[in-house]
Amino acid sequence: MGALSRAAHALSFLLLSLLSITADASSLCSKQGSSLVRNISEATQSDFGRGGLAHITVAGALLHGMKEVEIWLQTFAPGTRTPIHRHSCEEVFVVLKGKGTLLLGSSSMKQPGTPQEFGIYANSTFSIPVNDPHQVWNRDEHEDLQMLVVISRPPVKAFIYDDWNVPHTAAKLKFPYYWDEECYNAPKDEL
Amino acid sequence: MGALSRAAHALSFLLLSLLSITADASSLCSKQGSSLVRNISEATQSDFGRGGLAHITVAGALLHGMKEVEIWLQTFAPGTRTPIHRHSCEEVFVVLKGKGTLLLGSSSMKQPGTPQEFGIYANSTFSIPVNDPHQVWNRDEHEDLQMLVVISRPPVKAFIYDDWNVPHTAAKLKFPYYWDEECYNAPKDEL
Repeated sequence: MGALSRAAHALSFLLLSLLSITADASSLCSKQGSSLVRNISEATQSDFGRGGLAHITVAGALLHGMKEVEIWLQTFAPGTRTPIHRHSCEEVFVVLKGKGTLLLGSSSMKQPGTPQEFGIYANSTFSIPVNDPHQVWNRDEHEDLQMLVVISRPPVKAFIYDDWNVPHTAAKLKFPYYWDEECYNAPKDEL
Repeated sequence: MGALSRAAHALSFLLLSLLSITADASSLCSKQGSSLVRNISEATQSDFGRGGLAHITVAGALLHGMKEVEIWLQTFAPGTRTPIHRHSCEEVFVVLKGKGTLLLGSSSMKQPGTPQEFGIYANSTFSIPVNDPHQVWNRDEHEDLQMLVVISRPPVKAFIYDDWNVPHTAAKLKFPYYWDEECYNAPKDEL
């Protein structure tokens, strides 16, 4: 192969790489609503930096232009859990596979306190009282816990607690949330 | 058996029947939110007068006190379909089993007109543009079509079209909707 040919080869490789990067960013964050019916099996799935989580935004504010509801498909590997957190939107879970525990703290005391525990299982549903601190935990040693999660008022604005004794006022806002980080365009400062 | 004994027997039967009626009405319409985690397999399922439909309100405004989102589990027998209808809330479908067709009319003409057709299938998702007239149809001859349906702003206020050529202004409000009829307490007239 001559030098020119090698250069052309290198350039075409670079161009292809750039195209591929563009396509990736586009598939992650562009409005994916151009096709009305979408195959969930082909949707982007990631742990978004949380080991043991597989998250898909089935219908979302940032990805699909939803304004009032958002739906996630989430799979938790054995032993993994959500942070302890609260939000002022409604949230409903439908458990598709596996089993686990819902831990639910109080919003009426100064801090969540010792949480109540509820068993959750395939074909069960539960909704989180608005603003109650909670955590969903796959305590099983072998089986994944898979759930459809529905929230109102997307994108979610969650306050995270390091433990159940952190005062509500000290919980830290995590916004945009893990899966919204890459696709959220912060409004520009108005001066 | 003496007359008194027969009367007592009849009375206790009547009381038991009344208790049973009360229990039924209660299980259909009382806030079922007292248990935080509910088994969907044990939820009330009915066709609500629409042959071939099996509807379960997984989390609802009237049944469970939801204010911003509502979730249904619906199964359509082969050949059955929803009415042609529209509503001003968001609606997302997640297809769990089977396949079918989404028919989608226009909200920008005087009437829906000839609808666009979209194939829907297990593991697909789609959302209905707010106020677009639509119909979901299980055209398969053998298999059920099962979907989770999420709406915002419950309970749903739907306008029904007899066919695709009915003007939008002539579509008829059906409120409360089929599964909300028994549990909806109309606000009293204020004079």
